[in-house]
Amino acid sequence: MPRPGVPQIETDPAILRQHVLDAAAAGRRVGFVPTMGALHAGHLSLVKAAADCDDVVVSIFVNPTQFGPGEDFERYPRSLQADCELLADVGVRWVFAPPVEAIYPAGDATRITVDGPSRRWEGEHRPGHFQGVATVVGKLFMMVPAAAAYFGAKDWQQTVVVRRMVRDLAIPIEIVVCPTMREPDGLAMSSRNVYLSADERQRAVSLSAGLTEARRVWQGGANVATAERALREPLTHHAVQVDYAVLVDPTTLEPLPAQASGVPAIALVAGRVGSTRLIDNLLLS
Amino acid sequence: MPRPGVPQIETDPAILRQHVLDAAAAGRRVGFVPTMGALHAGHLSLVKAAADCDDVVVSIFVNPTQFGPGEDFERYPRSLQADCELLADVGVRWVFAPPVEAIYPAGDATRITVDGPSRRWEGEHRPGHFQGVATVVGKLFMMVPAAAAYFGAKDWQQTVVVRRMVRDLAIPIEIVVCPTMREPDGLAMSSRNVYLSADERQRAVSLSAGLTEARRVWQGGANVATAERALREPLTHHAVQVDYAVLVDPTTLEPLPAQASGVPAIALVAGRVGSTRLIDNLLLS
Repeated sequence: MPRPGVPQIETDPAILRQHVLDAAAAGRRVGFVPTMGALHAGHLSLVKAAADCDDVVVSIFVNPTQFGPGEDFERYPRSLQADCELLADVGVRWVFAPPVEAIYPAGDATRITVDGPSRRWEGEHRPGHFQGVATVVGKLFMMVPAAAAYFGAKDWQQTVVVRRMVRDLAIPIEIVVCPTMREPDGLAMSSRNVYLSADERQRAVSLSAGLTEARRVWQGGANVATAERALREPLTHHAVQVDYAVLVDPTTLEPLPAQASGVPAIALVAGRVGSTRLIDNLLLS
Repeated sequence: MPRPGVPQIETDPAILRQHVLDAAAAGRRVGFVPTMGALHAGHLSLVKAAADCDDVVVSIFVNPTQFGPGEDFERYPRSLQADCELLADVGVRWVFAPPVEAIYPAGDATRITVDGPSRRWEGEHRPGHFQGVATVVGKLFMMVPAAAAYFGAKDWQQTVVVRRMVRDLAIPIEIVVCPTMREPDGLAMSSRNVYLSADERQRAVSLSAGLTEARRVWQGGANVATAERALREPLTHHAVQVDYAVLVDPTTLEPLPAQASGVPAIALVAGRVGSTRLIDNLLLS
């Protein structure tokens, strides 16, 4: 048995799965928080939400297939020791930290694609990213047969893709989306924020500043074109290289007509501050 | 409760899934036989094998996504009434006959692909076929959380694709492959045999005849090139339009070198007799 408060680390999917099945058979509801490690307060808020369940599993796995060529897979921050310390005394029973070959065995040939909601935005700027996400999440959901899985709203398109996959494949798990955690100045928490220099860190606040401004004008009755101008203004001002900064339908992720107003909308933004690519979003209504 | 011997027909995935979970929770092993209906003795042999389990589910679903444009999806034989009669008194507890929209809900966007073993042979001649197979089998395995699923060896490449998917995605189900059932003259049983005219039915025996002859010469020490000639001879003689007639590695489905002999091998054949496309195979060693 693990010491009270200290999660038990499992690397073997079969053993972890059996723990979860045993807990479920004993009538315990198991919550699952899939992460790539480099944990911050955003992840901890997911763990806290999952603590509504009787047992919580956190997986830590930097998934190679969701990084494109030239992206930051190699330098992505890895800190298993520190992560496990953060997860002590927050109600986590198991940390699942599988080696790559447990998730992608030799000869691995299977991929899950979610066509519709993967197509635009991150899907366009990071080809193959959502195939990698859907595939690893699908595998993890088989290995961790929890009742519910917890995702952060910061990766909004990811939550839409995962929800669609779960519905389409009839995977028996509930998807819970938790609010984005932010630094005091508004910057969305992200494991990639550690890449930012002091100057870049200041300029990075323009993403959340643009989103807040877009919401202000949108809620004042502005149309899509006006709200998108408000969204982009601070990005331009802080020399953020914008990949996209748009208002879209929160469910389909399709763009909204320029003249629309007062409809369900979410603002999505992605851009590069120096060499660091950041994303953020805000529900406007 | 269903009348003794008569399976209960379920069309709702959620209800069927609960039946299977309840049976499993009661300590019963559930076996699953996925079919497209138009049942024949081949399917019944799968049901018989599955009867090692405590409860058997047979699904009947003509899966649109595994048919290509111009293939026989529309005219594929559908005979739910006759199928259910065949399944009486053979130990089947549930027949799962979902409508298309239960398997492919509006907005369905998710597909499973198994790249390696899907590439050649049927994959080449029926583009998209194995993506359709993997996707529907993946969905069915979520809806029918059985301990084991039973497939016929007649669709050999399908069994390789399904096994690979199950391993790669860590789907918790055992795959059991059962021998091909044949008519007295050797023709592999297939729901598509009903398409054959009397003349075509006679010529169709050349597939199994070629396979048997290939095995005879292979077991006598012939190499791949010689065995493939033996395989093709009766096909040519009976004017079968051959898609492929090859010896391959049974696990990877990769072609074997022409001069190889005495290695693990399976002969695969596909061809058109009149307008009916048939496939067959035989393990040679």
